[in-house]
Amino acid sequence: MFVVMSVNASEAEINAVKSHIIEEGLQPHDSRGEERLLIALVGEVGPRRDVLMSRLSALPGVESVTPISRPFKLTSREFHPADTVVQVGEVAIGDGSIAVMAGPCSVESREQLMETAEAVAEAGASILRGGAFKPRTSPYSFQGLGVEALRYLAEAGEATGLPVVTEVMDPSQVEVVNRYADILQIGTRNMQNYSLLTAVGRIEKPVMLKRGYGATIEEWLMAAEYIVSSGNPNVILCERGIRTFETYTRNTLDLAAIPLLHHLTHLPVVVDPSHATGKRWLVKPMALAGAAAGADGVMVEVHPRPDEALSDGEQSLTLEQFRDLMQTLRPIHEQVRGQGRDPVPAGTALGVGGGRH
Amino acid sequence: MFVVMSVNASEAEINAVKSHIIEEGLQPHDSRGEERLLIALVGEVGPRRDVLMSRLSALPGVESVTPISRPFKLTSREFHPADTVVQVGEVAIGDGSIAVMAGPCSVESREQLMETAEAVAEAGASILRGGAFKPRTSPYSFQGLGVEALRYLAEAGEATGLPVVTEVMDPSQVEVVNRYADILQIGTRNMQNYSLLTAVGRIEKPVMLKRGYGATIEEWLMAAEYIVSSGNPNVILCERGIRTFETYTRNTLDLAAIPLLHHLTHLPVVVDPSHATGKRWLVKPMALAGAAAGADGVMVEVHPRPDEALSDGEQSLTLEQFRDLMQTLRPIHEQVRGQGRDPVPAGTALGVGGGRH
Amino acid sequence: MFVVMSVNASEAEINAVKSHIIEEGLQPHDSRGEERLLIALVGEVGPRRDVLMSRLSALPGVESVTPISRPFKLTSREFHPADTVVQVGEVAIGDGSIAVMAGPCSVESREQLMETAEAVAEAGASILRGGAFKPRTSPYSFQGLGVEALRYLAEAGEATGLPVVTEVMDPSQVEVVNRYADILQIGTRNMQNYSLLTAVGRIEKPVMLKRGYGATIEEWLMAAEYIVSSGNPNVILCERGIRTFETYTRNTLDLAAIPLLHHLTHLPVVVDPSHATGKRWLVKPMALAGAAAGADGVMVEVHPRPDEALSDGEQSLTLEQFRDLMQTLRPIHEQVRGQGRDPVPAGTALGVGGGRH
Amino acid sequence: MFVVMSVNASEAEINAVKSHIIEEGLQPHDSRGEERLLIALVGEVGPRRDVLMSRLSALPGVESVTPISRPFKLTSREFHPADTVVQVGEVAIGDGSIAVMAGPCSVESREQLMETAEAVAEAGASILRGGAFKPRTSPYSFQGLGVEALRYLAEAGEATGLPVVTEVMDPSQVEVVNRYADILQIGTRNMQNYSLLTAVGRIEKPVMLKRGYGATIEEWLMAAEYIVSSGNPNVILCERGIRTFETYTRNTLDLAAIPLLHHLTHLPVVVDPSHATGKRWLVKPMALAGAAAGADGVMVEVHPRPDEALSDGEQSLTLEQFRDLMQTLRPIHEQVRGQGRDPVPAGTALGVGGGRH
Repeated sequence: MFVVMSVNASEAEINAVKSHIIEEGLQPHDSRGEERLLIALVGEVGPRRDVLMSRLSALPGVESVTPISRPFKLTSREFHPADTVVQVGEVAIGDGSIAVMAGPCSVESREQLMETAEAVAEAGASILRGGAFKPRTSPYSFQGLGVEALRYLAEAGEATGLPVVTEVMDPSQVEVVNRYADILQIGTRNMQNYSLLTAVGRIEKPVMLKRGYGATIEEWLMAAEYIVSSGNPNVILCERGIRTFETYTRNTLDLAAIPLLHHLTHLPVVVDPSHATGKRWLVKPMALAGAAAGADGVMVEVHPRPDEALSDGEQSLTLEQFRDLMQTLRPIHEQVRGQGRDPVPAGTALGVGGGRH
Repeated sequence: MFVVMSVNASEAEINAVKSHIIEEGLQPHDSRGEERLLIALVGEVGPRRDVLMSRLSALPGVESVTPISRPFKLTSREFHPADTVVQVGEVAIGDGSIAVMAGPCSVESREQLMETAEAVAEAGASILRGGAFKPRTSPYSFQGLGVEALRYLAEAGEATGLPVVTEVMDPSQVEVVNRYADILQIGTRNMQNYSLLTAVGRIEKPVMLKRGYGATIEEWLMAAEYIVSSGNPNVILCERGIRTFETYTRNTLDLAAIPLLHHLTHLPVVVDPSHATGKRWLVKPMALAGAAAGADGVMVEVHPRPDEALSDGEQSLTLEQFRDLMQTLRPIHEQVRGQGRDPVPAGTALGVGGGRH
Repeated sequence: MFVVMSVNASEAEINAVKSHIIEEGLQPHDSRGEERLLIALVGEVGPRRDVLMSRLSALPGVESVTPISRPFKLTSREFHPADTVVQVGEVAIGDGSIAVMAGPCSVESREQLMETAEAVAEAGASILRGGAFKPRTSPYSFQGLGVEALRYLAEAGEATGLPVVTEVMDPSQVEVVNRYADILQIGTRNMQNYSLLTAVGRIEKPVMLKRGYGATIEEWLMAAEYIVSSGNPNVILCERGIRTFETYTRNTLDLAAIPLLHHLTHLPVVVDPSHATGKRWLVKPMALAGAAAGADGVMVEVHPRPDEALSDGEQSLTLEQFRDLMQTLRPIHEQVRGQGRDPVPAGTALGVGGGRH
Repeated sequence: MFVVMSVNASEAEINAVKSHIIEEGLQPHDSRGEERLLIALVGEVGPRRDVLMSRLSALPGVESVTPISRPFKLTSREFHPADTVVQVGEVAIGDGSIAVMAGPCSVESREQLMETAEAVAEAGASILRGGAFKPRTSPYSFQGLGVEALRYLAEAGEATGLPVVTEVMDPSQVEVVNRYADILQIGTRNMQNYSLLTAVGRIEKPVMLKRGYGATIEEWLMAAEYIVSSGNPNVILCERGIRTFETYTRNTLDLAAIPLLHHLTHLPVVVDPSHATGKRWLVKPMALAGAAAGADGVMVEVHPRPDEALSDGEQSLTLEQFRDLMQTLRPIHEQVRGQGRDPVPAGTALGVGGGRH
């Protein structure tokens, strides 16, 4: 539920509304629209809904009160109709452009990172990616260079002018990663690590939340809701493939999630074809398909010598392949940019219909 | 395993090789390359492989003998490196162009079909689709107009100049569908109906084989192998979404299957975003994504008045939406057309790798 | 929707009700309860529901009219509260006993079948299974001995006194399989082969319908509805595992389907741990688990020399292992036999709830 | 890889072997067998394998060196053939008995917990469960009573004599949960939260690791490997259902995982039918099926008044239903107890075979 304040509501009226919400045991969350203030009520409303709506409607300065039908509230398009544009330095994500995040799976050395960073910057990447803390299925695999890698990333970011995105695995790492990186990434295995979501919800830098490989779109948005309701509205969603019975690819890239999310939420959506497919030669067609489906960004793994990579070499593009990808990606994006989205018929049921087949 | 005959092998030498194959309890299948004849050995070779290869290599007129590593043989790229181009009247599928198949889910009346056919033809569709025999989850749902619908399809095809594709559900229907249609479609629920696959393998018209909603890519190619090994090489594959845990969409469209299939097989690949998503407003972005991923064709459901459709109205485009789709589809296809495919590193394992996540 | 006729309704009144149903464009289906006749209305009722209910209620001899909330009608527990007991010779399936179906995956020779049949009969099996027509993923694999195998099955059945179950793959095979077998099996790949379902719906012998490996429980019951609405009420359901992301087993055996089906339908439910797991050493624990979950029967593959089997040897029990299984299966079944089923709270939603995890 | 020391190897010889392992950049892990010491080499061995094996074999006091073929090492049956028995107070898990863990989903009040604890203790439960920190899909749902609940659990455990199991969500909670609970549970969403796994690997109390709802059995064992390789060998595995396309149940309970795990690992395996099914009336048959499949324990949710529960009421048994379950569970367990496990044929491939269907 959210309250729309009238254009000329006074500060005192706004505060009175918030106090009322707090007295009801709920949390008020501001969202400033173009002209007026919206205040969401966060918490379990339940059967009080109708009473609450009529009480709030009667307060001075209130223009209207609107229910939110989805289980996610602050992240829903209903509450926040305009697209969220996440600004990272001079790069905007969600403004109609396509952001390209590129770099190695793991930062392996200062040299490897610098070589890659300069090459991807020159080819037109807008953001540098690289793993410092690596969540690995096996405790015996390379776990990343840690803080040392963070320093190299910051250095490479400065040298090339590219903002830097890297993964944070644990609430206790948030402070140090926040110090060096421009965007903090939550990995697929941690999508429902609620302590971590809450921790990155308390910082100001943007967070890129990857979809859990076994998570529905609704659960993914509920995870984003943890971050936003903790105070950080700068969330980027990243589709990276879900687990299915198909074994020829590492995961199945769910590209329909892109237009679906653009309908359900105001947050920008990025696609990661490297982890989705697990195979270098599938990255380009899937990156292009992501752009054609309307993605706000693409994240790809690039390595100067993939065969020597300490992790995920099989899915990393060479520098040459990345340059080649960029030459087709931009024109594809230009074709779909600014295309209107098909209207969703009123009353369309989302979720399981009668017969799936 | 297949035998490459030398350029100037005589008819007698060719026949001797085939006789030898038959004596071994296997079937010889010809494939004429640009300069020379290839003869595939079809059947279970098993441990005889090495003996067989050396025996065949020693026969006069044989240039070389090559094993095929995949369980699918005649449909594999190894056996038949060049793309198969399926010709239907003046429309070619698999030649680098993009074929657009459009029309109603079910043929409901002569008028409904004619109106749709003329509109999609004018908007640039290359093939008319429409259901005559409808496989329905419930025995109490509309099952299609049957032969009456076939006659309308033939009439509409003639009037618009569009070839016609429609589904055949049963071996006993093959003859009548073959009489009226230009392409026979095998539906998702019948992908492993081996009697039906064998029956359409004995006709000459092209067959469009939809992927089973629960089938792996390998099983799909094995199903195509049934058709080709029965004598019909004109098979078109159609990706239409697989079943996953996600419930916001009807199925999950597996677009990575397109470049994967282009690597594994020489058969053309078409994508069906209507059945994959089950939602009209997702059809356009997914059709564009399919084109960007390199599809040889797109099949979409179109209805003049989707709200009155007897089946699948929720996923049918209006005539206006179809025209709009066509205006973006062609330029996207132009961007990817003729792009080289990224090379697949030798020894790349397909199938499950160490850790999926 | 179904009509409950009063105990002393006359033949004329019954016929009048049926005529009325037919005039509405629907089909009447009888089900004789202990005291009174029930007549189901089969077909799409849609918005006419309320009008129809009041019209039918007003006819002479009608006691009441009840809607059926599920998409499956004749197979639903709502329409037919009592358990269906399928009688095959002297064996009853669904009466509280546990039927054990055992035999080779494929009938390979008269000797192999006889040896297996005698061993399983002696160990306490109640029904003999064996494949004559084999649906194989590859067209180059052994496809079964066909009619020759049917003859051996009939002979072995006669010699041991065991009824025989075997698969039918095609409507054109129904007549010959019906001549030799006691139960006709529909395989997992043909669960939605509607022509075949309709064909076995027109015979009188029991049909065992295996769950499609990618099918939901609801779709499975809709497939059974095709058979029952075509005239054959003797349907046995067989859970044999569904396809998931797990690769250590061939399929994932969904044992919760057993108590769920006992709630949703009156048809008996059998479990097949051989195809579900694909591994001989997992068959016994999964057969026992199936019995503990309340299965009305168990079907297992048994082969005198599994290592020499022409199909599915890896999952076939030896004769010794089958005897060992039988010694634990019966006592487990005795423990659960006659246990009341936990009541299902009224208004319990089946289907996806708010958050799955 | 692991080194088997000879029976009379000296302390100095043992230390020399460990020093050698450390010099190679790997970690030695002891496992004391009945007569002799085994030392596992933990870390990435890779291509050095053969050299390493011959060098270690040559050291004094070494009897033999054996490779471990699986990606999980310390948790594999190869390295540790005997069953691990986890001892919690007087309760043993994995010794052939069946441990029953019962209690409310969430601890809601001192009274609710006490009433439940006493009832389940009287009915024969061996361990008390109850949630203090609750991971919830929505940030707006009840998140548990936290430390207050831990105190109630400790009190109820003392009053009834039952050891207590409860979930820990974050490394920073490990200390406090360790203070109050007897077994620390890692929930399904945190199965790959590596910081948390490492943290519970550094304490001595047993850890119950639930399977991730989207995780393969192999990944689950790799997660257990994180705990064991961090120093804590007392790990209990808990199967709680995986995510599939079926929507009638919350998850699909993968009971074949029980015998599979008994083959792959020495760790005990418990089954949770409450979360797997999400429906109270399915809990009993699935608990019995778990026992019949050989589970070392069963965990069920029990609530005095499920309709008033703050979480998961739909799947909680009443006290009466729990008593009824116990009366059938024990006899079923007695039937399978001490049954030999079917031998796994040498060279049996685990993982995807040729054709799944």
